[in-house]
Amino acid sequence: MQSQVGSEQILFTRGVPAIEALPTTLMSECLQAVLEGADGKTILQYGHNGGYLPLRRLLAEQYEVAPEQIVVGNGSLHLQDLLSALLVKPGDVVFTEQPSYDRAIKTFRRRGAKVIGIPLEHDGVNLAALEQAIARTKTPAFMYIVPDFQNPAGVTTSAEKRQALVDLAKRYGFYLVEDVPYRTLRYSGESLPLLRDLDDERVITVSSYSKLISPGIRVGYLVGPRDLVKTLTVLAEDTTLAPVLPTQAAVVEFHKRGYFTSNLERLKQLYAPRLQATVQALETYLPDVSFAKPEGGFFVSITIPEQANYANLLVRAQQSGLALTDGRGFFADALDESEGAHLGERFVRLPFCALTPEQIREGVKRLATLIAE
Amino acid sequence: MQSQVGSEQILFTRGVPAIEALPTTLMSECLQAVLEGADGKTILQYGHNGGYLPLRRLLAEQYEVAPEQIVVGNGSLHLQDLLSALLVKPGDVVFTEQPSYDRAIKTFRRRGAKVIGIPLEHDGVNLAALEQAIARTKTPAFMYIVPDFQNPAGVTTSAEKRQALVDLAKRYGFYLVEDVPYRTLRYSGESLPLLRDLDDERVITVSSYSKLISPGIRVGYLVGPRDLVKTLTVLAEDTTLAPVLPTQAAVVEFHKRGYFTSNLERLKQLYAPRLQATVQALETYLPDVSFAKPEGGFFVSITIPEQANYANLLVRAQQSGLALTDGRGFFADALDESEGAHLGERFVRLPFCALTPEQIREGVKRLATLIAE
Repeated sequence: MQSQVGSEQILFTRGVPAIEALPTTLMSECLQAVLEGADGKTILQYGHNGGYLPLRRLLAEQYEVAPEQIVVGNGSLHLQDLLSALLVKPGDVVFTEQPSYDRAIKTFRRRGAKVIGIPLEHDGVNLAALEQAIARTKTPAFMYIVPDFQNPAGVTTSAEKRQALVDLAKRYGFYLVEDVPYRTLRYSGESLPLLRDLDDERVITVSSYSKLISPGIRVGYLVGPRDLVKTLTVLAEDTTLAPVLPTQAAVVEFHKRGYFTSNLERLKQLYAPRLQATVQALETYLPDVSFAKPEGGFFVSITIPEQANYANLLVRAQQSGLALTDGRGFFADALDESEGAHLGERFVRLPFCALTPEQIREGVKRLATLIAE
Repeated sequence: MQSQVGSEQILFTRGVPAIEALPTTLMSECLQAVLEGADGKTILQYGHNGGYLPLRRLLAEQYEVAPEQIVVGNGSLHLQDLLSALLVKPGDVVFTEQPSYDRAIKTFRRRGAKVIGIPLEHDGVNLAALEQAIARTKTPAFMYIVPDFQNPAGVTTSAEKRQALVDLAKRYGFYLVEDVPYRTLRYSGESLPLLRDLDDERVITVSSYSKLISPGIRVGYLVGPRDLVKTLTVLAEDTTLAPVLPTQAAVVEFHKRGYFTSNLERLKQLYAPRLQATVQALETYLPDVSFAKPEGGFFVSITIPEQANYANLLVRAQQSGLALTDGRGFFADALDESEGAHLGERFVRLPFCALTPEQIREGVKRLATLIAE
């Protein structure tokens, strides 16, 4: 076994579910049930772009809001794109954690925002840096944060910092966009409140079923103030015309049959040992590197010490059969840009869910060897 | 029967498939087959945003192009939106037929284009007006046309005009975007060549399965030059991240099992008498109104004679249990704007597929009564 793993390529590039975790049979059953059920015709026809009403109702109950506060789209990035189209005016800035989800940064930029990264610590953003950024630049159109098991850093924002973020958003009048696709995948410890539990006027919540059921079904959603959701729904209709109702209906059926709960349990049992393997491998092979230890999600990340050898790391890793993502993409227009670029070069994201514990150990070992060279 | 129809509301607003035409059982079978088949895991995972490769291959064969010339999206409007984001630069103009598909006009405008409508005759656009528009304004980023059974007018562009359009596009260097979702739904007569059959460098073809299988599955596609498709695929990835693979795979299965052909036959048998009923009702109740007689598709449209009573028509129709769409939405920024608005007020689109022949006759009868008042 070990020798097999020893020679194969290890992909630390993919923040995707494990292929063995994808519920093909359950999804097939659910799609069959909804297509041959009472709503079969409805879900093959054009639908209202807010999304499949029973799914909006289910989410409304879960988030304790009205169904009119929910819009379902093709994954959360789709909704972030539409949200940016709506909120970002020319010359606007958007704040993100630094590092942050690379595709989100790209999306905000494409919609015309100047993106400013606020340094992320092991318990959430540096609040002093955030206040300085607000003072130095203009109030952002919104601040984007991933409060639970952050992509890419694995950081969970503390209860105190959640409250402080909401207080700042209220004081300065900007939206907080919390992206919570990993939140339910908690392998240990207790959940902290959603930002929207602390304030529901300044907080917009986006999430998706990509990590909890399947990415291929493309079901993501946004919870927000009624007016904003209404405008966003019109914009969704103007761009994709109608929702993908069959997969949205299948998600409702997935819940109804109790599959959501059992599937989630299965995911946790599969992923928890992989997280543990990642943490242990880092402690074994890179004992001097400090990192945020997540209690869930998809990612652990490290910053390579400055004195280690990170020159040309991606290419050298590739030559050793180790695929890494360029860390620089996670660092937005930094307040100190040279520092941002520098930090990005030393930043390594380790998505662990789609790898076996053996692959994880071997991968971290290779990484440790490379930076010690 | 007649008295039942006599009192019910008749919706001439909906260019949607008949509910009885939606193949719930066949689609259920296909989804089950693909999810439980060899590609089950693949289609629940993140996928390449060009779309499900076997579907791209199937379309490539059909259009005699390479799979790299095809991108599959969530319906054709989604692709038109991305295409506009790519091709429309600030200050650009886009030409459409006048009247044209209202949502397409809106999409091009939202992406920053000034939209200019070229008068549509019963055999395609007025070519002299098109040449004048090119001379008067700048060369358009593209010209959008629906050459077969046009939405909203029902017009099919003649072979001569197809050739002339392609010649102009080549001479002046603009793209022709041909939208052909209705093309296969031909109830009589012979198909004319696609614009792309006349020139494949200046023609971009978009289409979808919404009218041929189901709108809810959201499967549309674009065929174009390799470089353009490549850029568009990246843009698709940046906005919706990944394709809805289960429904795309189900479309392939739908073809494999021969369901596409049998379903298409069934659609034609259902819709042909509805088109016939529309034409006959117009000839019976509005004998003085000339209109393009389509040989397929979803729409017949009329322009109410100037001397008839079209004042406040939508409201009066609603009061008579007849829902009509505001014709003005189909008329883009007209060269002569006052004339455009005026034409739009007198323009009535009659989508016939989702109505029974009885409903169609009753609806046209009510319309005739209203404008004779």
